[in-house]
Amino acid sequence: MRIKELIQRKRDGAGLSTEEIHGLIDAFLKKEVPDYQMSAFLMAAFFQGFSREETIDLTNAMWKSGVSLERDDRGQTYWIDKHSTGGVGDKTSLLLVPIVTATCRSLGIAAKIPMISGRALAHSAGTLDKLESVPGFSVKLSRAEALRILDKEGFFMMGQTEEIAPADRRIYALRDSTSTVESVPLIVSSIMSKKLSESLDGLVLDVKVGKGAFMKSFPEARKLALSLVEVARECGVECVAFITSHDEPLGFKVGNFMEVEECADFLACDVQEAGLSEVTFRLAAQMVRMASRGSLSMEEAQTYVKQSVQNGSAYEVFKRMFAVQGGSWESFEGARSNCNDLLEYSYLSSMDGYLNRVDALEAGLLVNGLGAGRMNSDSQIDLRVGIEFLAKKGDAVKKGDVIAKIFHRSNINLEFIHSSMSRVIGVGEEPVPHTISLVLDIL
Amino acid sequence: MRIKELIQRKRDGAGLSTEEIHGLIDAFLKKEVPDYQMSAFLMAAFFQGFSREETIDLTNAMWKSGVSLERDDRGQTYWIDKHSTGGVGDKTSLLLVPIVTATCRSLGIAAKIPMISGRALAHSAGTLDKLESVPGFSVKLSRAEALRILDKEGFFMMGQTEEIAPADRRIYALRDSTSTVESVPLIVSSIMSKKLSESLDGLVLDVKVGKGAFMKSFPEARKLALSLVEVARECGVECVAFITSHDEPLGFKVGNFMEVEECADFLACDVQEAGLSEVTFRLAAQMVRMASRGSLSMEEAQTYVKQSVQNGSAYEVFKRMFAVQGGSWESFEGARSNCNDLLEYSYLSSMDGYLNRVDALEAGLLVNGLGAGRMNSDSQIDLRVGIEFLAKKGDAVKKGDVIAKIFHRSNINLEFIHSSMSRVIGVGEEPVPHTISLVLDIL
Repeated sequence: MRIKELIQRKRDGAGLSTEEIHGLIDAFLKKEVPDYQMSAFLMAAFFQGFSREETIDLTNAMWKSGVSLERDDRGQTYWIDKHSTGGVGDKTSLLLVPIVTATCRSLGIAAKIPMISGRALAHSAGTLDKLESVPGFSVKLSRAEALRILDKEGFFMMGQTEEIAPADRRIYALRDSTSTVESVPLIVSSIMSKKLSESLDGLVLDVKVGKGAFMKSFPEARKLALSLVEVARECGVECVAFITSHDEPLGFKVGNFMEVEECADFLACDVQEAGLSEVTFRLAAQMVRMASRGSLSMEEAQTYVKQSVQNGSAYEVFKRMFAVQGGSWESFEGARSNCNDLLEYSYLSSMDGYLNRVDALEAGLLVNGLGAGRMNSDSQIDLRVGIEFLAKKGDAVKKGDVIAKIFHRSNINLEFIHSSMSRVIGVGEEPVPHTISLVLDIL
Repeated sequence: MRIKELIQRKRDGAGLSTEEIHGLIDAFLKKEVPDYQMSAFLMAAFFQGFSREETIDLTNAMWKSGVSLERDDRGQTYWIDKHSTGGVGDKTSLLLVPIVTATCRSLGIAAKIPMISGRALAHSAGTLDKLESVPGFSVKLSRAEALRILDKEGFFMMGQTEEIAPADRRIYALRDSTSTVESVPLIVSSIMSKKLSESLDGLVLDVKVGKGAFMKSFPEARKLALSLVEVARECGVECVAFITSHDEPLGFKVGNFMEVEECADFLACDVQEAGLSEVTFRLAAQMVRMASRGSLSMEEAQTYVKQSVQNGSAYEVFKRMFAVQGGSWESFEGARSNCNDLLEYSYLSSMDGYLNRVDALEAGLLVNGLGAGRMNSDSQIDLRVGIEFLAKKGDAVKKGDVIAKIFHRSNINLEFIHSSMSRVIGVGEEPVPHTISLVLDIL
């Protein structure tokens, strides 16, 4: 294969055949195609895009570059996962695994959740980092260990390994350093090649749109969601995509350890922020309905998932979820009540009025600045720092009210926190409506 | 500097500052920017282009990455060169050096021609390869040797060295393997960075357009010519660009050794094909006029350059041109009369009619197929093979007339030659006009 010609044809907007795309990925993995040719190809693809067929071919080629989870229970047990395109304060994965597991168990629905997640990226945090804020928890499982846990518990939560979609791992690293991340077909093939390796029956997607999301406009997000759903279905996976608004952080807390705290409080029915509740319960109900193979209506599924939280069964699974992968919930609780090494900064309202802005992107950048931001894939990050919001958009505040508490280390300049928070938070005299629903569309 | 951001800004169509472009080239040369980032940048540049200022900055950065020829005669002696964008049968450089040198000498014009040339590229041949078909001729000169020859003889003809525009050499190699060659600003900066290293006062350009040229349409060629002239002038070099038609091969012969033969015959006043004469005399007159600093009119310059050929003085310089760089003209003449190792295939007209097509691109590809085509920069090529045309477009031919002779080795399939020639040559019943002038525009 003449890679130069392939690059030229993509550059000039021509379509590539299935054989050509598989040949390219194969040759790249064998290092017959050097990085500098692949990065030129990716930039040409950024400008010229991929057809539906090319996107499916690319996804398949990247998926088949590695192994898939072995299973012999297809038709009996429903394997399902959820993927979010990434947001600030988005801790729904940590809630969905226990809620869906507890609900399906109580209903006798045979379901498994083999969840392969990612780490923090740009301003958006990663599920793996959050999981690791529970002392002892290991996200590094071999395929054999993962399958054993899945068989016994009905779920696992781990990171991408060397053997899962290696072409995606190498291409993603190249895209990251050559500014070719923001391309719908490249995003779709990257996400789906990993998800297909999970041998799923069903997948629920949360495509976020807004200030705190990678997709800034609804048409962009819809285009991405549509392509994801199309590719999943074409590859034999049932798929439903939610498009959810993400201008504000999801929930009250942003920061790895603090988000696990919020999940615990949510499942203990202590604090349930409205937006986080809505997204969590709708995604969970969708997953349960799919796992029931349509025998439950959406309303029934919603009722059952809420029950699993109210009766404490989801909370029990949540705590066990950490234990089965080496995490000590007791140590987490201990750390929670002993945070003397953290400093607390209160951000106060400077006037009487209404909260008209809680900017998710700025909040994510601030938490990164506090030490939770990863410079490269090897970076150590501070899991304890973060922000707790005491009010959401639309809430009335009085001068001097604490709007947010920032938990930080002593090396952080307070002026940095204050000026960052003034970009996160807006207060005005005019009343602004509360957000009624975050779900904008379902595909 | 954050190279990722630079790539992203170029990708999104933003302009880059002088500092940013110099910083990028500098970091690339120091290998702080890896090839895979540079190739992504080049592809983004292919799509988004460069402004006039960016093109000048890029040219300057690539030029300054290496050394320039030292000179202390500025204002006294006029250093001039010619550059062609490349064609099939284009041997004008070999004619211009002796003609301009002989003419300036006879008129007492202080002029020097420091010519740094290239090798064969795609279907188009290179001056260096043609020069090397004279036994003993060395195109590899050190800067000191080159300057010594220039001082004594008034010219030299050599290849790009390690120290001349090294950034261009590395970037060109990347462009060649990532399909980012066909970009006007990248072509301009590549050509001009080398030419500026020659410390010129003046430069005459031959921008070719047509089937045998890299630029297929007049507007494309004009855009390239305009940008070349703009950058040259901005960098303090007088510059005139000729846009010349290049659908047919230039002259009668195509092939390295055979083109040197044609130059010898031209200067000996034996055979002077009309198109080759026109382009050679017009470019030569332009060079002489510039070297005269405008004291000669174009008509006077044309008269003098023709005289230098008619009186044999240019032919004397031509032979010496090879001798001063180690070439043996006697050996060349000997090889010319002894070509028993070459086979000759005659391509005949199959009908009475008029030659309506002599396709330069197809002719170039055929000569490559005969063994003169370079697969990569280290390839050995066969300098002796080639085509001699006995007729040009518009000529009347009878059935059985020899239209062209193909000189080849015994390993070449005659069917390949015949089918290639049927793409090169077209004969029809309708009379077609001869080409009157190849010069389409002068900028």
